[in-house]
Amino acid sequence: MSIEARIADLGITLPAPAAPVAAYVPAVEVNGLLHISGQLPFREDGTIVTGRLGQDVDLAQGAEAARRCGIMLIAQIRAALGGDLSRVERIVKLGAFIASTDDFTDQPKVANGASELMQAVFGEAGRHARSAVGVPVLPLGAAVEIDAIVAIRPL
Amino acid sequence: MSIEARIADLGITLPAPAAPVAAYVPAVEVNGLLHISGQLPFREDGTIVTGRLGQDVDLAQGAEAARRCGIMLIAQIRAALGGDLSRVERIVKLGAFIASTDDFTDQPKVANGASELMQAVFGEAGRHARSAVGVPVLPLGAAVEIDAIVAIRPL
Amino acid sequence: MSIEARIADLGITLPAPAAPVAAYVPAVEVNGLLHISGQLPFREDGTIVTGRLGQDVDLAQGAEAARRCGIMLIAQIRAALGGDLSRVERIVKLGAFIASTDDFTDQPKVANGASELMQAVFGEAGRHARSAVGVPVLPLGAAVEIDAIVAIRPL
Repeated sequence: MSIEARIADLGITLPAPAAPVAAYVPAVEVNGLLHISGQLPFREDGTIVTGRLGQDVDLAQGAEAARRCGIMLIAQIRAALGGDLSRVERIVKLGAFIASTDDFTDQPKVANGASELMQAVFGEAGRHARSAVGVPVLPLGAAVEIDAIVAIRPL
Repeated sequence: MSIEARIADLGITLPAPAAPVAAYVPAVEVNGLLHISGQLPFREDGTIVTGRLGQDVDLAQGAEAARRCGIMLIAQIRAALGGDLSRVERIVKLGAFIASTDDFTDQPKVANGASELMQAVFGEAGRHARSAVGVPVLPLGAAVEIDAIVAIRPL
Repeated sequence: MSIEARIADLGITLPAPAAPVAAYVPAVEVNGLLHISGQLPFREDGTIVTGRLGQDVDLAQGAEAARRCGIMLIAQIRAALGGDLSRVERIVKLGAFIASTDDFTDQPKVANGASELMQAVFGEAGRHARSAVGVPVLPLGAAVEIDAIVAIRPL
């Protein structure tokens, strides 16, 4: 099954990749490594999942927000690869920042929303290293922000 | 125009690169990638821009602090390259940490102080991926800390 | 002196590498770079050093927690290299997240617990770039989390 087929099978329609909210670019490729800028949890209607874990975002909503970041990461990867996701050799690393109250300590379960998506979409190639940390606040009030490093095959 | 000329044109004098405040080194190069340690917003007089966005540092001051981190990043890159900034192939990624109150959500506008500098100095090669997140506090009370990954040309 | 001998000389017994607390893997190698997931400060008995700098963890305890993260990083590196630490070419970068109250600004001194370990174990090859930032809270309430990028020699 192709990666595009797996994405469809998961009921996911990749969105138009979000434009950076500031003076940078969504992705830079160099020497076979693609660095993807931190992605926010956009909904289909263009709004963002905002709030803080431990306060106004529960665990399921947080994991869903992380999954939305993951979908946007995949959309950015596809755009950077000219539409050809089969060039993904490995999801190398996810960096997950979780907006958290001082006593919320389940950041890994939240970040799993993105990690499980990567494995569902890319299979073995989706198994990545990761860090997940709590932060007090994120751009635009987002609940989650995730960046990524991806290894890609030469053309 | 050379990169050095562009830096002069911007009215910037690169400072002596800051010594690490602890047991690490400012930059490590391996396989054409240069990893630069997190840089703090040093002023010309050696003091640091301290404080927190949303409290005692406003947006303009925050962006200026980010720009100072960017100047120090460039000073570290130049030192790591033995003075030859023309070897910069691409600014690949900036990681921006912004000291923020819980309700300050304009981290991207702050980080732009560094991002716009990179593009002004390096042109197309300065267009980078980025993450920007809020944190409660940074070393020495700094308002901003930024690290970087830079692709360099072989000698 | 071999790296294993140096580790023994420091009185360190590398633990079994910790299993990821969620849906990711401890390390991914690609193109000679090994990305290690964020490691927590496990004690020998499997418990974690929890708490916050500036509140219930003092500087010495924080540096010791960072050292424990460093020991776990080395254990993960060894496991990823099939037991052969002599393949470590360079510790390239540590990313240190320190659970901190809003007014604790000595993150660099805390992170030194890991940085000094890397230099004691790997010598010149252990001299790395680093970022160290304060965060309000970490997974499982840990006091410190550290991830790493390591350059390795081909087999």
